[in-house]
Formats: sequence, C-alpha cells, structure tokens
Amino acid sequence: LAVAELRDAVGLRSESVRRANLSAILRELHISGPLSRSELVSRTGLTRSAIRGLIGEFVSAGLAFEEPAAHLGSPGRPSPVVRPIPDQATVLALEVAVDSLAAACVGLGGDVLSRVRVDRPRGHFAPEEITADLARLARRILRPWRDSVIGIGTAVVGVVRRSDGFVSVAPNLGWDDVPLGDLLAAGLKTDLPISVANEGDLGALAELRRGAARRASDVLFISGEVGVGGGLIVGGKPLTGAAGYAGEVGHLGVNPAGQLCRCGSVGCWETEVGERALLTSAGHAPDGGREEIEAVLREAAAGSPVAAAAVDSAGHWIGIGLAGLVNVFNPELVVLGGLLGRLHPFVDSIIERELDQRALRAPRRLVRVVPASLGLDAPLLGAAELAFEPLLADPARWLGPREVRAAAG
Amino acid sequence: LAVAELRDAVGLRSESVRRANLSAILRELHISGPLSRSELVSRTGLTRSAIRGLIGEFVSAGLAFEEPAAHLGSPGRPSPVVRPIPDQATVLALEVAVDSLAAACVGLGGDVLSRVRVDRPRGHFAPEEITADLARLARRILRPWRDSVIGIGTAVVGVVRRSDGFVSVAPNLGWDDVPLGDLLAAGLKTDLPISVANEGDLGALAELRRGAARRASDVLFISGEVGVGGGLIVGGKPLTGAAGYAGEVGHLGVNPAGQLCRCGSVGCWETEVGERALLTSAGHAPDGGREEIEAVLREAAAGSPVAAAAVDSAGHWIGIGLAGLVNVFNPELVVLGGLLGRLHPFVDSIIERELDQRALRAPRRLVRVVPASLGLDAPLLGAAELAFEPLLADPARWLGPREVRAAAG
Repeated sequence: LAVAELRDAVGLRSESVRRANLSAILRELHISGPLSRSELVSRTGLTRSAIRGLIGEFVSAGLAFEEPAAHLGSPGRPSPVVRPIPDQATVLALEVAVDSLAAACVGLGGDVLSRVRVDRPRGHFAPEEITADLARLARRILRPWRDSVIGIGTAVVGVVRRSDGFVSVAPNLGWDDVPLGDLLAAGLKTDLPISVANEGDLGALAELRRGAARRASDVLFISGEVGVGGGLIVGGKPLTGAAGYAGEVGHLGVNPAGQLCRCGSVGCWETEVGERALLTSAGHAPDGGREEIEAVLREAAAGSPVAAAAVDSAGHWIGIGLAGLVNVFNPELVVLGGLLGRLHPFVDSIIERELDQRALRAPRRLVRVVPASLGLDAPLLGAAELAFEPLLADPARWLGPREVRAAAG
Repeated sequence: LAVAELRDAVGLRSESVRRANLSAILRELHISGPLSRSELVSRTGLTRSAIRGLIGEFVSAGLAFEEPAAHLGSPGRPSPVVRPIPDQATVLALEVAVDSLAAACVGLGGDVLSRVRVDRPRGHFAPEEITADLARLARRILRPWRDSVIGIGTAVVGVVRRSDGFVSVAPNLGWDDVPLGDLLAAGLKTDLPISVANEGDLGALAELRRGAARRASDVLFISGEVGVGGGLIVGGKPLTGAAGYAGEVGHLGVNPAGQLCRCGSVGCWETEVGERALLTSAGHAPDGGREEIEAVLREAAAGSPVAAAAVDSAGHWIGIGLAGLVNVFNPELVVLGGLLGRLHPFVDSIIERELDQRALRAPRRLVRVVPASLGLDAPLLGAAELAFEPLLADPARWLGPREVRAAAG
C-alpha cells in the first residue's frame, strides 16, 4: 500500500509539474513571439529534452509549429524556432470606452487579426443597448475565426469586480451595479468564459506585455480622459486588491480645498488633471472631449498664454500626484496614457521638477516617466491578454491530460 | 541518450518539487504552529504519504517532532501532531526605533525566547554607535541559543534598500546613505545572513502573520510616530517596489496648502497626522514624544476642548488619507499602529465617516479599519520573520539534497 501511495504521489506531482512547465512555455511564446528551443531552455530553466517533449504537445495540438533551424550568428548547433500559430487559438476583445466602442479578434502570440472601433456620443446608455452594439461589432469582425475563439475579454471604463464582471459603478456611462459579464453572455449568446476588467488596469497590462513597459516589473500606468484611472503592476503582476477594485488613482485626494469630484469627494486627483479641469482652465467647454483637448494643445503649442497656463497647471498637478504614488509604490517606470500621455511632451520638465521637489530621494532617483506607446487601443489589447489568461495559466486543460506512466519515463 | 536525458529532467523536476513542498510545510508549521498531519494534508494539498516523508526529513534534522495522535473530536483515525522545535532554529531580531533599541531571540514557530528593549534619547547618533549598542543587546540575550541562530533581521525607522540593507535616509536618526547591513556584520562579528527593512514594512509583516491581520491577504498597515510609515500587503505579499522603498504612505501629498514636511515637500500626510501635528495643535511641545502624546489623550478623554479638537483633527486627516489609499489599494483591512493605533478608539467614528464621504463605494464597503494588536514590538517580531524567510523559502538548503533515485519511488 505504501509503495502504491508513493507512486501516486509522484505521479500527481509530475502531472502538476508538467502543467506548470506547459504554462511557462506557452506564456513565453505568447508574449515574446517565436523563440528558438535554446532560448526557451534559457528562459524557462528546463532541460532540452523536457522542452522538446512539451513543444511536441503544442505541435500535436496545432497551437505551434517548428521551423527548420536557422543559424542566428551564435555559436553551436542551430536550434529550431518555435512559432505560436495565431489563428488556432483566438480571443474576442471588447471595449466600452468613454466615447467609443471597440472589438478585436487577437490570435495566440498577440497578432491582431481584425479590429473595429466606432465612436459613440458621450453620455448615458442602457447596459443592454451597449452590449447589443458590442455583439454587432463582434459579429462583424469574428466570422473567419469563429471556431477558434477560446474566450472573451472586456475593458470597461468603470469599477469592476473581477470574479464575475460585475460593474459596481461607471460614472461616465451612468451605470450602477450592472452585471456586465452576464449581459455580455446573453447578448453574445455564448457560454465561452467572459472576463471583464477596468480599462486602466487592462491598458497597463497591454503596455506591460506589448508596449512601453515590456519586461518591467513595477510600473504605474496612469491614464486620463474624463476620469483618471490607473493600472498598477507590482512585482510583475497587476494589483487587483481584495476584490478587483484597486488602481483608482484618480480618486486619491490631493487638494482638500479643491473641486467637488464626480465620486462625491472633494479634491480628487482627477479634478485637477482630468479633461474637465484642463478644458475649463483653458476657457473651453468642459465637456468638449478629445477634439477640444486637441484644440487646447494646438493653442498651447502656438503660444496662447491661457492655454499654456492651463497645460502647465495640469503638469504641476500631475507631478504632485505622481510624487505621492512614487513614494508609496517605488515603481521603476510610470507610463502616462490617454490625455496624460498627450500632455507629456508639453509638461515633462514640469513633472520632473515636481518629482525632484516632492518625492523622496531614493525612489525618485529610480523612476522614469514615459508616455504610453500603444495609444487608444491599449485597453482593447489588454482585454485580449485577459482573455488569453486561462489558456496561458493551464494549457493542459486544452491539451488534455497525459498518461502518468509516460511522464515518469 | 534521450532516455537518460529524460530521466535527468524528471529528477531535476522532482527535486524542485520536493524543495517547494518542504517549504510549504515548514511555512505552515512556522506560521500556524503545531498541526496534525491531516491538517497539513488539507492545507498543502499534498498526499498523506508525501506529507509523511517530508515530515520525516524535518524530524531527522531536529526541526520538528511528532506527538502521539490525539482525538480532536473529529471523525476518523486520529492523526499525529507535528510541532516545530523552537530552539533548534532561531533568529536574532533587532530594531532601531525613534526612541528605543530592541533585540529578541525568536524560535522556529514564532516563540519569543528572550527579548530586551532600552529607551534611547531621541536625536541623531552615529550609525557605529547604534550598531555597537545593538551588538551589546544581542550578546545580553543570545547566549543560550547562540549555536542555533540561522540569521539576523533588523527593523529600522528609515528608507531601506532590501538587497543589501543600505539605509538611504532616516530623518529621525539623522542618517543619509548608511550601509547598515555591513555595519551590523562588522559590529556583531558574524557572517550569518543579515536582512534589514523598514520598521513599517516589518510591523505589517508581523501583524499579518501573528497579529490583527492573520490570514488576510490585502492589508494596509499604517503606523505613526514622528513619521508615518506603511507596510502594504498585496495578495498576501509585502509590497516592496522596484528597490524596497515602497510603502512611504506618510509622504503622500494630502494638503498642498499645508506645512513643510521634513522630507522637503509640502503637505505630506504625516504633517497632518504625525506626532508633531497632534502635539502642536493640542498646545504641547511638538518634540515631547510618547509621554506628551499620552498626556494629550488623557486630556481629550477628560473633556479638554483643545485636546479633543486636536485629536478630532487628526482623525479627520487620517480618514482623508485612508480614503485615497482605499481607492488605490482596495484592501480588506487597514491596521493602524503606533500613534494611529492609540488614536483609533478616540476617532474611529470620524475615520468611518470620512471613508463614507470620500472613498469609492465598492472598496469602501469591503474595508475594515482596526487597531494593531502586537503593540510596540510589532516591527521587532517582523524583523524575526524576515530573518526566518531564507529557511522557510528553501528548507532543503538546511536539510541537504536527497537522492534523486529515491524520489522517483
């Protein structure tokens, strides 16, 4: 009995090791793209023979193929290059932004196979209306990859509980307590897994995997439009908090003598650095949106003192808020997206000066502030990454179990 | 060749699995205390036979013993209870606080075997003087356990780089760029591993493992004295940031129209909720320290309007700062230590009201605010936990490697 039990234990452990190793390899291939077997050996720490066996499983399942070895200028035997096959495992990415809706089909490895974005008027719409619009967009782009979709990821400009895609509040949409995950399942008529997360968080994830913060591990991604949201990466992982609500940096109180915020508090960071603050102080209509923002930036560039002062004031408050966050998080990188990314070239020296004056010396020395590199689509690309997560975390569930005896050699 | 390689791969993986499993078991025993084998099975997910084998390794190494099975009122066969042996693996914990120095010897499982704390006058002392004092304290308490010490952990009221215990700045000590880790190694004449971390971080770690936040996974531990420091626990792990400087919540800007802070910035949280703010607004000497703080609390309790207003104002600002941190971190628990813990019974309703008014609804609903439970010694106990970390992370290094062939059954 003891021997049988022990064999069971070893088998169980081998199987869980196999699953972890499959996950490590597929994650590397998905995030870094085609890699030679040697690169996979050095990145995963697995042996050559283990890599060969595990790659074989992906090849049999049609998720990857191996190209003939190519000499890469490095010494030693050339090593075959392993490529993920984008259209064998795809995801549907959706986005509900302040003034647009978007959908994309993204393949394993991160290739965007198709994408569409439509403007929508700002304002409040019934959740059912939005999900119906999203379902129409999805049908438009998805046809050729319909059978390969393994999951759906959704970015929404609101506060989201990750476990079930429940939107607790989305002031820009006028939503309170909306079960967006359930509505999407009904609207899309699907039982595929649907994940929903805050667009700030997902923009951060995308910049981390495919944009300005590639291979960084402690990153504040801060994005501004009407509201200011954050996706915070801590030790290489998204900060979710106890229930997925973390990252609401726009509602850090920075000025108790300031303006009433949409959230009901006073002097939140977004009351000083959001769109409304900039447009108001530049003498533009506070609800003018992206077009008016571009007008203010053009005026500032052309030398308008009012526009320049408004932009400088935003830069000053960006620096004040960042200084506190740098002290609390000690990030290596701050990535500014949306409005804040647009402002960055105008105010980078103001931001740097505020950090010099206000942040503690040690974390201040370490941190770099850069604009985002993926533009408007960052949250949409992040939604795709979210939808790939179950596959990357446990590819074995897609590949099926393996005979335990074979694993023991 | 292929077969031999494969066996190697399986062996390598088995060994790394064994190390991870040993770590999981020792961590449970250290943090939760004596556990029956059945409890270890359910907590680690390992099989009974695997647990038996791994426990055997700890027993042979003298780190644990098994007691005869006891019926615990639950059905089924009674299960032997595994106990860590405290004095077979001990650590030296040290603390440099604002107005005291402390040392303790702590055994595996968390028993404090001996401890000493001496007051010191506030002010600036040469680092060499402090380390000499700490070495004297260590000698006083360590004698009986000298040979079992496996590492040294140190809590210091300053900003610390974890990798080498370098203190970048400690305003309360007047230190800039002090290589405290190296100085301690010289002062203690030891080549044992020495870890150094911020006392706020370590207080948080101790409250998490042994105090008010046991088994919670997203916790803000915020402690106030002269300065206000934080130890932030994110997904069960301490938030360190890119270089170990994270958690400086005292230097979150909350009031740009406020006071100049010791750090050079203006309106940091600690200028509103630290000792000096409370003492000044209560009409006491701002540098009066703990005794004057206790006097203010006595006056407030006795109905002095000036003292009560000062205490209420601190509560108000505690709430403002917490609201922002709750929005950013979405913690399940906020633990208030030091001065803030002392204030909590006086101002808990003010704090709760500020959170109601200022924090976003969803994270606000989730969070509880409680006082710390370990008192003054929390950072010292956290320093002990820090020193145990290498043993807990890889007990196999202490137990030695095992024959790979035996592992394959």
